[in-house]
Amino acid sequence: MKFNISHIDKLSKARAGEIIKTSQVTGKKIIVPTPIFMPVGTAGSVKGVHARELEKDIGTNLILGNTYHLFFRPGTQILKQAGGLHGFMGWNKLILTDSGGYQVHSLAHKRKISEEGVHFACHLDGSKHTFTPEKVIDMQRAIGADIIMAFDECTPPECSYGYAKDSMELTHRWLQRCIKRCNDTEKEKTQIFFPIVQGSIYKDLRRISAETIAAADMSGNAIGGVCHPSGHLYEITEFVCDILPKDKPRYLMGVGTPEDILECIALGVDMFDCVMPTRNARNGQLFTTKGRINIRNKKWESDFSMIDEDLGGYVSTHYTKAYLRHLMRSNELLGAQIASIHNLTFYLWLVKQAREHIVKGDFAVWKGNAIKVFMSKI
Amino acid sequence: MKFNISHIDKLSKARAGEIIKTSQVTGKKIIVPTPIFMPVGTAGSVKGVHARELEKDIGTNLILGNTYHLFFRPGTQILKQAGGLHGFMGWNKLILTDSGGYQVHSLAHKRKISEEGVHFACHLDGSKHTFTPEKVIDMQRAIGADIIMAFDECTPPECSYGYAKDSMELTHRWLQRCIKRCNDTEKEKTQIFFPIVQGSIYKDLRRISAETIAAADMSGNAIGGVCHPSGHLYEITEFVCDILPKDKPRYLMGVGTPEDILECIALGVDMFDCVMPTRNARNGQLFTTKGRINIRNKKWESDFSMIDEDLGGYVSTHYTKAYLRHLMRSNELLGAQIASIHNLTFYLWLVKQAREHIVKGDFAVWKGNAIKVFMSKI
Repeated sequence: MKFNISHIDKLSKARAGEIIKTSQVTGKKIIVPTPIFMPVGTAGSVKGVHARELEKDIGTNLILGNTYHLFFRPGTQILKQAGGLHGFMGWNKLILTDSGGYQVHSLAHKRKISEEGVHFACHLDGSKHTFTPEKVIDMQRAIGADIIMAFDECTPPECSYGYAKDSMELTHRWLQRCIKRCNDTEKEKTQIFFPIVQGSIYKDLRRISAETIAAADMSGNAIGGVCHPSGHLYEITEFVCDILPKDKPRYLMGVGTPEDILECIALGVDMFDCVMPTRNARNGQLFTTKGRINIRNKKWESDFSMIDEDLGGYVSTHYTKAYLRHLMRSNELLGAQIASIHNLTFYLWLVKQAREHIVKGDFAVWKGNAIKVFMSKI
Repeated sequence: MKFNISHIDKLSKARAGEIIKTSQVTGKKIIVPTPIFMPVGTAGSVKGVHARELEKDIGTNLILGNTYHLFFRPGTQILKQAGGLHGFMGWNKLILTDSGGYQVHSLAHKRKISEEGVHFACHLDGSKHTFTPEKVIDMQRAIGADIIMAFDECTPPECSYGYAKDSMELTHRWLQRCIKRCNDTEKEKTQIFFPIVQGSIYKDLRRISAETIAAADMSGNAIGGVCHPSGHLYEITEFVCDILPKDKPRYLMGVGTPEDILECIALGVDMFDCVMPTRNARNGQLFTTKGRINIRNKKWESDFSMIDEDLGGYVSTHYTKAYLRHLMRSNELLGAQIASIHNLTFYLWLVKQAREHIVKGDFAVWKGNAIKVFMSKI
């Protein structure tokens, strides 16, 4: 994997670059322009979106899969037989998998953390499992993603200093075990490993963690534990970005709104993922070039303008707001499909716009107005 | 609308033909090869399927809408403002709407039938409504379908002779009121009206009804009240087809399985519709060129062959059986989407195959084996 930065904004820390990685499926080079947003394909599918729609309509070539979900369904055995997640889901482009660290925290029951790993009961059937750093690497080897993540503890929001410190130190010890397992199981250098900075809202912990993660000298680095609405997102992100190496991609996990993405691009983040565009789509919230829309509202009942003419793309210029409102209110599957493709198209357009303005040199100026427009309610 | 028959099978009553109608949207001629199957777009969408997928993947240019559902959501007022259902749902090809006669029977509550029409409570909110022949024509004018249907009483399965006779006579009186309303409201000759044969399982009633409907001398004729599993489907269909005029399309409403479709093509039916391919798809039942599949079964867990290589088309040759099984079991939206497109592609392929064999002259021979294969469980 290569990461080239071509432009740095003069008025902010925003960077325009490219991640270049050879496809494990086709052997061809795939170029991911950064900053980039990765659609979330939790259980082997981006909900409501066909593989060809991801590629052709939304214009993405890097999506995210959740190791926790894939472990339970379809299971790593099936994924191995299928030749990994790429083959299983019919996706020729790039995949990043998280480590399950966040899901064992947010979804699993009866969670107990020990030095060994996390013991928990599955949210689906209550069955008992243990995720260890070694097991999580093995799972990600079976899934076969292009970028794989370290197993960390994602600290709860507003946790105490003591908890955060102990947790961070455990995450660092787990990192060493992850790296060892990666080295022990690496056959061909096709999977890239990213470690994750933790440390909650405490800057001295974040500093230690960022320095530890930087010292691991991997091809890219991630920042975890900031996606809770803690009010410290920008402060912590900037603080950590300043410590992490400049010449490697920085991935801010689980973020966020269009505003958060643009602000964090300005702080030096290169990669984002979030369920917001698809989850909100299923509830009827659209992100558009004119602002945010609750498509279920009566005001759209007889609005026969296209969903978003300026955004372009099939669904946003083929279907009207009135039609989408009708589908959502009638619980028609197609409503969730249209809204999901639309929102993901918007998110990919958003980071592309940001990139163009970084290249052009007016990102910081553009950002202020863009946030005002995109976050407005219309 | 024109209907041309090009071939008649020598060993059965199967016909190959074309329905030709000018699009109300584009003004261009649209050719529907017959026999044809019409995907059902109940509430303004074929569930889980984009407009472009209907056209490009499934290869259909004639779909069905349900007047009953559209009356409640989005309502005829919105549809009028949208320039009809074509504009509302972004569908440039042809639409047929039923009259709501079946839905007021199968869905509505507190149904009371009088000479005037049907009084009932909406299945969604319990609100009280009356559908009359005049109102149903007005609704279908607002929806603006290319082919519109008479308002009939769809008799319950196994109803008594007396009930069936009274009901049929009422349906015939309603037909005259429908025709009058059609004539009174016709501005441009763009909507084609089909009357419906009723009479339950009683042949003398079916004869009277078929003769009455034939005498109305419309551009096409429909056979209703046969889609219940009454065991009389083929007998009644053949009996009625023999009476209905040869030179007009015959539409068998709400039918059916691949077997029923092929058998009824052999009896002289030209048009079909049924929710089976989409409804069964959402439950995991697939119709394939090799037979029927319950994709939720464990036997497909690690079957990495494509869904149906011989059928062709994007979803059937891009996604594997194991992947689709995983999606269905994980309640992923994409599972219902893939299965729906696949099943509809199969149904359209099925009638196309039938047509080719009618043209080739070996339909009756092909049909026997085809039914054996397509109805087998694999």
